[in-house]
Amino acid sequence: MNIHLLTIGDEILIGQIVDTNSAWMSQQLNLHGMRVTGKSSVGDTRQAIVDGLQHAVAQADAVIMTGGLGPTKDDITKKTLATLFGSGMSFHPETYERIEGYFTKIGRVVPPAMRDQATLPDLATILPNKVGTAPGMWFEQAGKVYISLPGVPFEMEYLMRNEVIPRLKTRFEARPILHRTLLTACEGESNIARRIEAFEDQLPENIKLAYLPALGQVRLRLTGTWAGAMTDQAETALGALLDAKKAELWALIPDLVYGVEEESLQSVIGDILVKQGKKFGTAESCTGGYVAHLITSVPGSSQYYPGSVVTYSYEMKHKLLGIHTDILDQFGAVSEQAVRAMAIGALDALDVDVALSISGIAGPDGGTPDKPVGTVWMAVADRKRVEIQKQVFGRDRLKNIQLTGTYALNMVRKFLLEA
Amino acid sequence: MNIHLLTIGDEILIGQIVDTNSAWMSQQLNLHGMRVTGKSSVGDTRQAIVDGLQHAVAQADAVIMTGGLGPTKDDITKKTLATLFGSGMSFHPETYERIEGYFTKIGRVVPPAMRDQATLPDLATILPNKVGTAPGMWFEQAGKVYISLPGVPFEMEYLMRNEVIPRLKTRFEARPILHRTLLTACEGESNIARRIEAFEDQLPENIKLAYLPALGQVRLRLTGTWAGAMTDQAETALGALLDAKKAELWALIPDLVYGVEEESLQSVIGDILVKQGKKFGTAESCTGGYVAHLITSVPGSSQYYPGSVVTYSYEMKHKLLGIHTDILDQFGAVSEQAVRAMAIGALDALDVDVALSISGIAGPDGGTPDKPVGTVWMAVADRKRVEIQKQVFGRDRLKNIQLTGTYALNMVRKFLLEA
Repeated sequence: MNIHLLTIGDEILIGQIVDTNSAWMSQQLNLHGMRVTGKSSVGDTRQAIVDGLQHAVAQADAVIMTGGLGPTKDDITKKTLATLFGSGMSFHPETYERIEGYFTKIGRVVPPAMRDQATLPDLATILPNKVGTAPGMWFEQAGKVYISLPGVPFEMEYLMRNEVIPRLKTRFEARPILHRTLLTACEGESNIARRIEAFEDQLPENIKLAYLPALGQVRLRLTGTWAGAMTDQAETALGALLDAKKAELWALIPDLVYGVEEESLQSVIGDILVKQGKKFGTAESCTGGYVAHLITSVPGSSQYYPGSVVTYSYEMKHKLLGIHTDILDQFGAVSEQAVRAMAIGALDALDVDVALSISGIAGPDGGTPDKPVGTVWMAVADRKRVEIQKQVFGRDRLKNIQLTGTYALNMVRKFLLEA
Repeated sequence: MNIHLLTIGDEILIGQIVDTNSAWMSQQLNLHGMRVTGKSSVGDTRQAIVDGLQHAVAQADAVIMTGGLGPTKDDITKKTLATLFGSGMSFHPETYERIEGYFTKIGRVVPPAMRDQATLPDLATILPNKVGTAPGMWFEQAGKVYISLPGVPFEMEYLMRNEVIPRLKTRFEARPILHRTLLTACEGESNIARRIEAFEDQLPENIKLAYLPALGQVRLRLTGTWAGAMTDQAETALGALLDAKKAELWALIPDLVYGVEEESLQSVIGDILVKQGKKFGTAESCTGGYVAHLITSVPGSSQYYPGSVVTYSYEMKHKLLGIHTDILDQFGAVSEQAVRAMAIGALDALDVDVALSISGIAGPDGGTPDKPVGTVWMAVADRKRVEIQKQVFGRDRLKNIQLTGTYALNMVRKFLLEA
């Protein structure tokens, strides 16, 4: 079955809010074997909603609308749907009681506008919203399903989980679909494509490979579908086939794959550190705390990450990391010698087993002919060895910082695995 | 003029990525007086793209497509557009040279697939992409404009700023429009709205106020439009009217406004520090380097920011900041006493004039009944005084970190201005 998501509201069109709702809805529907074949956004007018619905339903079995409900929006979605489907509107006591209960719980008086909120199209099946005021609505017309939900994320999520998905699964036969994702770092999309070309060409009809690139990283997603109904047996077989293909793909590029599914470089490093019982610290210059931020964005990172320093100035590199000033004077802070000394210095300064150091020129200014903007040196050290890497990225400050984060964390990962 | 945004790619439909591109594009187009009247997303197939285009162009003067370019997507967008418009494809030497230059700069061999990347529809005006490999394309057919851009955000942003927006402004007569923006921190949208209600009610017809909320911040944007052609005189008059309204608005909420237009809390703090000739440093615990990252994302921050420490563990708080362990033992790391000692300790440890310290429970775990997840203490100190603040945010780790960043930087700003 095919679903179209239609978001209603000017705030999406002027870019005032980012539409995170429809990504969440797609993920959930997908997980349950339902396919989103299109998404669209329209403004807060009757005409825009009617046009949007016509377009949506031409290519889908069901349309899920979000937004355009509630008194400040003049209940535009509800009124438009009632008119479109020729439905009268009636006061719905159950809904009003639920709204009363909601306001009582948060200790407020029920606003007069809530009588309108509880006046609903007679043809709609009402989906009770237990976490807010505007109920969801379910219409069926000429074999198609139209669902209207509030735009507030947690209200929409509540109704999707508890009302919409269970009802859709009963109403339509969900198409079986499963995913497996490999995460790669530090190689471009087209170079990866070249290395796995033969694999890709020989994939069975029912398995597709997608490349999902981000800055310095590419996710490789295998999607498997099934022609018949998804019995438990069919699901197990498709899962096994996908797992086999995933293993095959991984074996082609073991140097590039750092993790699977919802992992991140920082979560993978965290897992290795916990397993190896090691403490890790960072000494950053040009990335200015960005790598520390990535590492500490992982819940529980305090277990293996006692702390770090950002040493922007020569003085701090000397004072906090104990680097001899003659190293900095002779070779400069952006040099192999400096990052080596920083990483070794950080081992003692931070009392850790493994330390990462970074020094470079993030830009936009500060470059020289032999050290252009984008030049970054990185080092990883433990008590026995030091690995060093140099990269030259581009001219954009923030992009340089983010790319360095990916390269540096991947270097740490490999260093830990070689230990 | 009306614009429709069409994103192409299964990754949007299955919810693997959140579509931040189209929010950014809407904002930019809006700033330049162009209106986005619809958005939609379709999958990676020829039929879906053709259907999506037909729907899009029925209601807009121009369609901007993102995604579906590049060798691993089989260049589906490019091929579909060439077929749709009856255009031949030719090798485009200029584009190939640009791609060669790009790979040379990053020290890589040009992959063979790049010859395809440089094979382009004859009818397209090529928009050179200086920050990636896939060029943008501009088609005109029957009075409508069709623009295709890569989906990688910074490549799309580069092409929008440097090629698409300037060309659209020449091709269509952009509606005369001017903006003035005030930036506020640490107050919610509805409380701000209440304080400026009378101002908002009395705005002239041709000036609108928009609230643009983000985590812990709200931008207030005044937009002025003009009925006739935008002569120099008209522009000056409208600009003066907007400036007067901006000053009026600012005077109503001087405690909330921290800056204007493209400034940020970190850039405003940087400007004050340069002006006051002061050095600044940070000692972070629960924010784990995020505040350091914000500060160092400003070009030239090394002038006033020698460095910082992230002290996650008790040991590092003692070792790097010299905090007496009995303070931590008696009051805990998340306490008024701890952040006071951290800020004062950071003044000496980092050799700075002003220091910020932060300690809290970012979550999702680690809360206690009297210190729930989301509890954050912040302190700002110089050699004479210490300001301290406590906040209790929510349960989401990343949101807590980001909200703390805003509250802490705003506190530093006020501290510096009171000096």
